[in-house]
Amino acid sequence: MNKPFQNILKKVKKFRDERDWMQFHNPKDMAEAIVIEASELLEKFLWKSQKESTDFVKNKKNLEEISDEISDVLEFTIELADNLGIDIEKTIEKKLAKNAKKYPVHKSKGKATKYTKL
Amino acid sequence: MNKPFQNILKKVKKFRDERDWMQFHNPKDMAEAIVIEASELLEKFLWKSQKESTDFVKNKKNLEEISDEISDVLEFTIELADNLGIDIEKTIEKKLAKNAKKYPVHKSKGKATKYTKL
Amino acid sequence: MNKPFQNILKKVKKFRDERDWMQFHNPKDMAEAIVIEASELLEKFLWKSQKESTDFVKNKKNLEEISDEISDVLEFTIELADNLGIDIEKTIEKKLAKNAKKYPVHKSKGKATKYTKL
Amino acid sequence: MNKPFQNILKKVKKFRDERDWMQFHNPKDMAEAIVIEASELLEKFLWKSQKESTDFVKNKKNLEEISDEISDVLEFTIELADNLGIDIEKTIEKKLAKNAKKYPVHKSKGKATKYTKL
Repeated sequence: MNKPFQNILKKVKKFRDERDWMQFHNPKDMAEAIVIEASELLEKFLWKSQKESTDFVKNKKNLEEISDEISDVLEFTIELADNLGIDIEKTIEKKLAKNAKKYPVHKSKGKATKYTKL
Repeated sequence: MNKPFQNILKKVKKFRDERDWMQFHNPKDMAEAIVIEASELLEKFLWKSQKESTDFVKNKKNLEEISDEISDVLEFTIELADNLGIDIEKTIEKKLAKNAKKYPVHKSKGKATKYTKL
Repeated sequence: MNKPFQNILKKVKKFRDERDWMQFHNPKDMAEAIVIEASELLEKFLWKSQKESTDFVKNKKNLEEISDEISDVLEFTIELADNLGIDIEKTIEKKLAKNAKKYPVHKSKGKATKYTKL
Repeated sequence: MNKPFQNILKKVKKFRDERDWMQFHNPKDMAEAIVIEASELLEKFLWKSQKESTDFVKNKKNLEEISDEISDVLEFTIELADNLGIDIEKTIEKKLAKNAKKYPVHKSKGKATKYTKL
């Protein structure tokens, strides 16, 4: 994997291994952890309109809280990818190619419709 | 931000902008999208034991499905970070430092206890 | 537990037991299932504004899809409560009393602020 | 709707209306709230095996915490159903009938396989 992921991964794994936590990091629980962290991120925007959520993140203190939640999501997701031997860049490229087939530009441009209903 | 994130970001944003989707990508809906993709990842492990989830990912076809879900989580999360002007590497470093205070090694080593109950 | 829950429970458990699925319905996986179904419900409103979500449910076909997702959430949640010997009505009453302390009327009236920030 | 739901609903709506919160309870945010509460329920079982989760709920204190989370999920879900004019019992019956077609007993008995892979 490329550098920045390697830098982050090194730190994430150091944190984990100092605490001897790999024993808990099976794929099922890692997936649970990702959902739980993603929900904490979502909670920051609960009861806010789309416009209010856009304004909310302009405040420095709020943005820091949101950055923390985004970090938690990324730490677990990048570590899980690494645990499974997944090359993040390649796999995202492949997925974007699949998504491009599901969402052809001429059908999906300017529309937020799920591919099953396009 | 460093290279690989920049490479991925460039592709993710190209995909988005070709479809004129930035209009939908406010923080609230991006957070929803991340939770939804994370749940699809979790669904791969539903009703499986931790041991079964570890075995499940050894199968090439299963791993590809899981890679797809991990990609979806990462695409939205990395894009959201970028939309908010967050430097991913720095913010993860800062969050790991905070987590290190919540989970001091001598208290948390070998234990999967939440910091509020340590 | 009271009648309607008993009626629903009887059907939910009949469905489960005809398929011999109790073996999979441990609390961890039931909680996963509830999150997954709740996310499918949320997906119906993804990329929609609050106003659009309110309009969306007025359409009969959309409402039926949403009813299906709400049913899935309820089936798993009510079954889990029953598996754990929880009396749903009593436990909701108790929780509302706790919530009333977290959210005193004079502090929270007309405000969508989390209790930790009230 | 039948009695117990009506009893619970009356209390849930009284709690909401005393705080003038109906203005926030559009379908999109209600669905977010349900996911968030469901995730908090799931967090109780994070890093625990299926067996450990089954043991965990035998402890009275743990069970109370779990009951609280289940209550939160149910409060929002039952209220949302009511806001949308959904008859909970009927809709669950209809959904069970649909699920029975997706999961015919002879194909799904004793198997935790998703219907798309049966």
